[in-house]
Parts: sequence; structure tokens; C-alpha cells
Amino acid sequence: MKIALDAMGGDQGPELLIKGACQALRKNKDLAVILLGPGDLLEQQVKQYTTIANIASVDNVIERLFVEHAPEIVAMDESPVEAIRKKKDSTIMRGFDLVKNGQADAVVSAGHSGATMAAAIRKLGRLKGISRPGIASLFPTQKNPVMLMDIGANVDCRAQHLFQFAIMASSCSALLQNRANPRVGLLSIGSEPGKGNALIKETHELLRQSNLNFVGNVEGRDVYSGDLEVVVCDGFVGNISLKISEGLAEAAMQMLKDEIMKSMQAKIGYLLIRKAFAAFRKRVDYAEYGGAPLLGINGIGIICHGSSSSIAICNAIGEAAKLVENKVNDSIMQSLEQYTTA
Amino acid sequence: MKIALDAMGGDQGPELLIKGACQALRKNKDLAVILLGPGDLLEQQVKQYTTIANIASVDNVIERLFVEHAPEIVAMDESPVEAIRKKKDSTIMRGFDLVKNGQADAVVSAGHSGATMAAAIRKLGRLKGISRPGIASLFPTQKNPVMLMDIGANVDCRAQHLFQFAIMASSCSALLQNRANPRVGLLSIGSEPGKGNALIKETHELLRQSNLNFVGNVEGRDVYSGDLEVVVCDGFVGNISLKISEGLAEAAMQMLKDEIMKSMQAKIGYLLIRKAFAAFRKRVDYAEYGGAPLLGINGIGIICHGSSSSIAICNAIGEAAKLVENKVNDSIMQSLEQYTTA
Repeated sequence: MKIALDAMGGDQGPELLIKGACQALRKNKDLAVILLGPGDLLEQQVKQYTTIANIASVDNVIERLFVEHAPEIVAMDESPVEAIRKKKDSTIMRGFDLVKNGQADAVVSAGHSGATMAAAIRKLGRLKGISRPGIASLFPTQKNPVMLMDIGANVDCRAQHLFQFAIMASSCSALLQNRANPRVGLLSIGSEPGKGNALIKETHELLRQSNLNFVGNVEGRDVYSGDLEVVVCDGFVGNISLKISEGLAEAAMQMLKDEIMKSMQAKIGYLLIRKAFAAFRKRVDYAEYGGAPLLGINGIGIICHGSSSSIAICNAIGEAAKLVENKVNDSIMQSLEQYTTA
Repeated sequence: MKIALDAMGGDQGPELLIKGACQALRKNKDLAVILLGPGDLLEQQVKQYTTIANIASVDNVIERLFVEHAPEIVAMDESPVEAIRKKKDSTIMRGFDLVKNGQADAVVSAGHSGATMAAAIRKLGRLKGISRPGIASLFPTQKNPVMLMDIGANVDCRAQHLFQFAIMASSCSALLQNRANPRVGLLSIGSEPGKGNALIKETHELLRQSNLNFVGNVEGRDVYSGDLEVVVCDGFVGNISLKISEGLAEAAMQMLKDEIMKSMQAKIGYLLIRKAFAAFRKRVDYAEYGGAPLLGINGIGIICHGSSSSIAICNAIGEAAKLVENKVNDSIMQSLEQYTTA
């Protein structure tokens, strides 16, 4: 199994990505990682990192770490359409080339997510029957993580698109979380079937008539309850939900810190509580949950947050391997077929 | 100044609401509060509470606390339209009757928010030129609170509606936060003008051409930054934003508590840090920010969370008084006129 990793994506440079790749290789001995980026630079960085980290001869890591020359990089502020048209030798385009040619099984990128999606569609095409590929993301909750789809690829959706998001996320969640018949909720502003906008009402009907484990409309506050495996929404609502959660978490931590810093007693208390805080942060850190799968493309791609840690990259590579191994796309196609033939 | 309070609204019964009213009356000596509900019950509850709290003779509270008999109560699961049609003697309907007849200046209710909005429109009508009244709500941030509108009254909106939300929230925020030219952001999935769905793109143009202090599109994470006074969105997105924030805050506190309870050291740390935690909770508690104004109706109404504390009720009454005193609707009308004549 070979996972292609965009070694130039993310905010923190290739070293962190190489570190994440090495962690993934040590974790899974059947894996190989292909680093995408300027060849000379990456060869040098790999040599440097594996020497410093003293892992050159450990677990055959170095024998399973390859470099594929891709001289161009898509900048974060580029238009996705322009970028994939003009930069044919970019890390992202090259990654999906490898998948197309059978030289890699999946692509992981912490770079430009819009361009990654556009490149995936351009190079691999959509899965048969899928109108709109989308991005699914796992959110931490009090119990098991919940998969929200779509988190930003499709801002203007029809009911049929949301219905397909439900099918795709349900298949993907079942594999990633080892759970048959994931509970699927439709994000709305009230749990009654009649609540929501026109799009939600129409989607509700489609889901109700399906064989999915549809629990009905759910509200914003149900997302973090942990009582659902999948929450379906359009990419506009999903992206805002994701970003508002990040913003709130950040603001709340800062406000709590401000209050603690106001008294000596609280500062001492903080020293004692620090480990619990760290455990909490680890538990809510999206990085721990790997990346966000691109679903509906004829292949496997995972996008990661630009500020991903090496653990996040390692987990995303593991996630990609899991989706390849369990043939997520076969599962989606089977599920989809039930409804198109019905 | 007389504020009518739905004394049967909320999850916790009339005593808490009476307590909130008394707090507001002690804070503002020019205020009177009219309690709405079954007359006998309320008279008895007022007597009981003012005796126990020993405030019968303090600050003339008892002389400024009135009871208006309204025998019917709208249940939380009733359809708003049905409720206002069938229950003409409900606390909510009676409240807006008082405003209509000039016997009260505003209504505050922690009861059924949809029915409150419906009753307000039925009894008072819309402000001239406003197509869709909406609900505005203040959110705590790292700096000043931000006003989000609409948080749930209008799920399917056109650009003109969102534009009017911006005008109304801008006027209201300027009064409540004593700030000229509040900064207005349009909630989208990227800060560039081209980002967002069709509705957002069209609204962006309207706002850009206006004289509002429009800072452009903002992302979910900007809501809690404190760098904006107003964020505009449709009621579907706004309601989900509000509920997802509540859900995340609750889940995060629970998860942090779980981690703290795992070690004795952290438990001791928690005892030292407790006050800082309480101060933090107070800072992020929406209750501290009063209620959510109904904007665009020809009068003043405030809805509160069903689980509001007495402080929340007190603050909502204070907020209502401030909107009455500063003539928020005149301000909205003036601002609106600029655009309809232009």
C-alpha cells in the first residue's frame, strides 16, 4: 500500500510532514509513503530528518519512504481552478497522477483544500452516479466522534446532493469507526420533520424513505452530543459549523486563561490541573482524528488542516490506508446502487 | 416606563421570573413591571416572594410591580400559528395587547419564542418597509459581544432580507453597546467577496453599496474574535451557529470535568481554580447579555432562553428599557429610509 503525501502542503514546512510520514511508517509496517515536492529539497530533508531522529535504520522506514519530484506548489491564496490549470506539475496534481497510474493508492495533503478537491476530480473523476463529491470531517464529541458532511466543497446544494452526502458519509463512517448502520442526522433548526428550510424539508423526505439509519432532523446542539455518527448538511452550513467551533474553542481557552492569570491561587491551581487540561486538549483536538476524506471521487484523497501536527499527518495517512484497505468506494457504490435501481 | 413580563414563560416557573423583575426594579427606579399570567396565582406568588426576600418595602418595588390577568399559557411544543389563533388570552398575546394599547412599552418573554414573534407581528405589525422581522442575539467574545441576526425567525431568505437584518442589527447594536457605526460582517465561508453561496454573493453587493460600516465577508471563526459588532446571516445558519456553540460549550465543559475527576491532584487544582472557572462561566454565559431583541416589529419585544436565570431576566428587562428609551425603531426607520429613498 502506497500513500502519496504532499510534502509541501501545510503551514510548517516539509520537516513536520516527513516526521508524520515516518511515524505512520513505523506504526504500519505494510505501508510505503511517497513524498511529493521538489526532488533535491526533499531528498536532503529526508536525509537530515532521519539522521537527526536516528531512525534511518529503524523498522525499514527509510526503505519505505520515496520521493516523487513535483517542482510546483499551489499557494493558499490561488484560485483552485487556475491553480490546477496552470500548475500541472504541482505536488497535488502529481499526487493524483500517481493514483491514476496505479503508482499510489491515495493522496494526503495539508495544502490548498479547494485545489486538492479540484485536482482529484480532474485527474480521477467522480464516482459513477455521484453528482457532487464533498468533504467529510470527524468532530470530537463526549462519546464517539461524529462525521459532518459536507464541510465546504458545495455551497449551493439540492436535496439529491445532501442525500448522496448521507450515503457517502454513512459508508465512510461505518469503515472508520467499525460500526454497522451509523446513525444519520440531518442538520436543521428543530427535530420535527417540518422544521428547517426548503432544502432540508425535501432532503428529509428522501432520507426518510431510504434504508439508511436515519434518525431525523437534529439541531446544532446534537452535533457534539455523541449520539450520532453522521450529520448531513450543505457545505456552506458545514464550513460555518466547523469554523465557528474552532473560533469558540480558541476564544474560550483564551478567556479561561485570562481569568486564571488574574489570581496567584488560580495560577497554582492551574499547575496542578495542567495534565487534565492537556488530556482535554488532546481529546478535543481535531488533529487526533486525522484528516478529512474527500468522498465521491474515483479514488482516495484526504485533506488536512494547514496547521496539522505530525501526529495529525500520521493519523491521516493511517486513515487513508484504512479507506483503501476497506474499499470505501466499493461500499459507497453498493449503497448508492440500492437507491438508483429502486 | 412599563415592561410587560410573561411570568409563565421559561422552564422554571414564575418565582424565578418575579425575582428577576424585582432585581430589575431595584436597579432602575424609573421602571415598572407588569407580570402576565393567571391573576390569583401571580398575586400569591408575588406576596410570597416579596415577603421571603424581605423586599416588600424596599425601593418601592412592590408599588412598581403589577399583575395583568392572562389565564392561558402557550406550551413549548405548540405550533406558533395555532397558538396565537386559539389562545387569545395567553400571556404572550396579552403582553402585546398592552403594548398596542399604550399600557406597556415592551414585552419580555422566556416562553415560546416562535409564538412570541408571531404574536408580536399579529398585534403590532411590522415596521414600515421591513419585509421580515428577525431575532438578534448577543454572543460573548474575547472583547465586546457581537450581535448575530437572524438566529431563527427566517429560514429561507432573500438578499433583501439579509440586507435589512444588517440595518436593524446595526441600529440596535449601536444603542445597546453605545458605539457609533458598528462593524458589520456577512457570515460566509471565506473573506473574499466571491466566496459563499448565491444568497451571500448577492447580499455582499447590497451591503458593499450601502453606508453601513461593512467590513465584508467573515468566517465562522471571526464570530468569536470580538473584532465585529454585527454578523449577518439567515435564520437557518444563525440558529445552527447558536445551537452548535451551546452544544460545544456544554460538551467541552463536561469533557474537561471528566479529565479533572481522573486524578486527585487535578481535583485539588480544581478547588484552587474554581473562582476563575466561575468568572469564566459568567463571562461566556449568554444570560449575562440579557435576551434576544425581536427587530422589525412595530414595538419592542425581547425573547429569553427558557432556562434563563433571574439575572438574565433582570438584564433582559434592562435591555428592553434601553431600547424603548433610545427609540430603537426610530433609529431603524431612519437608517432604512436612507436606502429606500436612495
